[in-house]
Amino acid sequence: MPRSTVAHVDLDALRSNYRKACTLAGSANVMAVVKADGYGHGIREVASALAGETPKFAVACIEEARAIRDTGLSQPVVLLQGIHTASDIGECAANGFEPVLHSDQQLAWLERARSAPAFWLKVNSGMNRLGFFPENLSDVVGRLSRLEAFSRFSGFVTHFACADDPQSPMTAQQTERFKQATLPWPGAMRSVGNSAAHFLPGQELFDWSRPGIMLYGGSPMLGRTGLELGLKPVMSLEAPLITTRTVRAGDSVGYGAGWVATRDTVMGMVAIGYGDGYPRHAGTGTPAAVNGRRIQLIGRVSMDMLAVDLTNAPEAKVGDRVELWGNTVGVDEVALCAGTISYELLTGITARVPRAYRSRSEA
Amino acid sequence: MPRSTVAHVDLDALRSNYRKACTLAGSANVMAVVKADGYGHGIREVASALAGETPKFAVACIEEARAIRDTGLSQPVVLLQGIHTASDIGECAANGFEPVLHSDQQLAWLERARSAPAFWLKVNSGMNRLGFFPENLSDVVGRLSRLEAFSRFSGFVTHFACADDPQSPMTAQQTERFKQATLPWPGAMRSVGNSAAHFLPGQELFDWSRPGIMLYGGSPMLGRTGLELGLKPVMSLEAPLITTRTVRAGDSVGYGAGWVATRDTVMGMVAIGYGDGYPRHAGTGTPAAVNGRRIQLIGRVSMDMLAVDLTNAPEAKVGDRVELWGNTVGVDEVALCAGTISYELLTGITARVPRAYRSRSEA
Ligand SMILES: Cc1ncc(COP(=O)(O)O)c(CN[C@H](C)C(=O)O)c1O
Ligand SMILES: Cc1ncc(COP(=O)(O)O)c(CN[C@H](C)C(=O)O)c1O
Repeated sequence: MPRSTVAHVDLDALRSNYRKACTLAGSANVMAVVKADGYGHGIREVASALAGETPKFAVACIEEARAIRDTGLSQPVVLLQGIHTASDIGECAANGFEPVLHSDQQLAWLERARSAPAFWLKVNSGMNRLGFFPENLSDVVGRLSRLEAFSRFSGFVTHFACADDPQSPMTAQQTERFKQATLPWPGAMRSVGNSAAHFLPGQELFDWSRPGIMLYGGSPMLGRTGLELGLKPVMSLEAPLITTRTVRAGDSVGYGAGWVATRDTVMGMVAIGYGDGYPRHAGTGTPAAVNGRRIQLIGRVSMDMLAVDLTNAPEAKVGDRVELWGNTVGVDEVALCAGTISYELLTGITARVPRAYRSRSEA
Repeated sequence: MPRSTVAHVDLDALRSNYRKACTLAGSANVMAVVKADGYGHGIREVASALAGETPKFAVACIEEARAIRDTGLSQPVVLLQGIHTASDIGECAANGFEPVLHSDQQLAWLERARSAPAFWLKVNSGMNRLGFFPENLSDVVGRLSRLEAFSRFSGFVTHFACADDPQSPMTAQQTERFKQATLPWPGAMRSVGNSAAHFLPGQELFDWSRPGIMLYGGSPMLGRTGLELGLKPVMSLEAPLITTRTVRAGDSVGYGAGWVATRDTVMGMVAIGYGDGYPRHAGTGTPAAVNGRRIQLIGRVSMDMLAVDLTNAPEAKVGDRVELWGNTVGVDEVALCAGTISYELLTGITARVPRAYRSRSEA
């Protein structure tokens, strides 16, 4: 018998969100971003579920690309962080991995390689994490164009810093800088566009967009929930009530004794905590649900359990399943209460929580 | 070749911290708490490394106890959260798992069981998470004393809410309440004492203490670091620099463009992010180290990377290993910057980060 703390993953919802991205992307192709273990949903299962839909996958590092190949999938896999060693180049060439090169060292590795993979160049249009400055791009491409490997050059990639905020002037600036910088090479493909860019009216997405969070039902937009954006929740995080009791007015609950009952309160303990990846920054007031009713956390989240106020669900009993996020409570709501974003919550669920997959289409 | 983002685990330091707990515990026995995957260090390896030292292990749930048995270790394993189903009782009896029973339902399962395991009773002395209220203890023990299983009753367990704060009156109150409540059964053992209790002068630890965080070098005390308490760091979290560059005065770095360079600044990108479990609540100003020099994070932590200011380490180059926490930067310092405790950071490291074990004694 499992501990029955579990993350249900709805693969139909995932596919539906992918299709929504395609609709929003218009004529742009859409590569599914499945890094960080498929944003915490399980890279193998997520990639398999999307294999019939997406022409390419994108991941952070080569280990993740290997996981996709080990699953038997044959789509090209874009490595958003490029490669880490000289020998990675050969492995990329042999396996259909497409590194996004962003540093002189990586160019040198490409230059010395005997067989080259399809590859991309990262342009730093203002994020200032990775990529070549626009003013250096001519030199970079000039240097590469002398190589045989240049026949495998796919195109240019850039990434937005503030697309979650429609008011920010930064996205338009980055788009313009990217457009100007890549103008001299009209034959190369262009890839911009995290999830947020799909929701910005009039935003150009060029040849390939790269949505991540929206596939998993999380909102990419500041102040909006995934549900409000028409996305379907994919992960439903559940844990059982392991005890219920009445705490008396004046008694405190949990570490630090920070929550004190102002009246006799029926409370429950739920078998999930930050050791499972539930955020410790959530606490009193964060919503959860039981039997379809919304309830709230009280006190501090512990490593293996957390406390809830059951005033709103007096019928709840030991063994009932509490939804920490999913359909009744959006992951974006919990993220807001924890002072973070759904991305961190989803990727943070630890290995102690088994993932359980649901899919009508393959049932 | 691995991504080379790695959590080194020093098993000698772990053993040394366990021995320190024994010294501090005086005449109390010490059970090693290895729940939540050994506080993120790997339950199998941690339990194996401590097998020659500790007479008992403690975990949260039966799945974790199974992991210890699967590793071939034979010590009793205490289940701090008790059991979740009726059938767990039989499994406990057959495998030397000792559940801490805390609810009427669990008592009913014990009553109906054909073979009983050694078991404990949880007393709620003020934490108000789990356990029987002191005033009900006589009834509970009375009910159980009629059972054959009662011959396997080990004793009483309680847990402190505020032992991290030496100023809090709560620990003395809980100790007194526990003592009074268990007075009628002088033959039963008594277990109190998380790590913090080991550092409270004059604190009674009765028969068994249950340290967790101190074994892993994290501080259990508010406002003190593990190093200050004489604990050895066990986990050293490292990731490579994947690029360095100069950002110009006025340019921003990272998501939200929240960090802006006030002067031309040499910065680096490090291949670790919240998708690895590094906390997104850390950010500008959080310490890290490279080549033994302390440096600081700038901007927001991304999913797969973060930015550091290299002004203080001008010699740092691509490929150099950045310590996120470990020997130069304490995990407690990072926790403070992230508004949380070392417990959450250590247990939060995701499966994407391989653990690499070091041990002189077994080399
Ligand atoms: C280069 C790149 N492309 C596309 C995506 C997908 O973004 P989104 O999930 O917002 O649709 C990411 C994700 N970035 C993560 C979130 C990061 O680096 O922190 C990315 O780094
Ligand atoms: C019953 C019990 N005993 C002993 C310990 C060890 O505590 P420490 O790591 O502080 O030494 C814990 C850990 N508690 C965790 C931290 C929790 O429930 O959140 C515990 O729940």
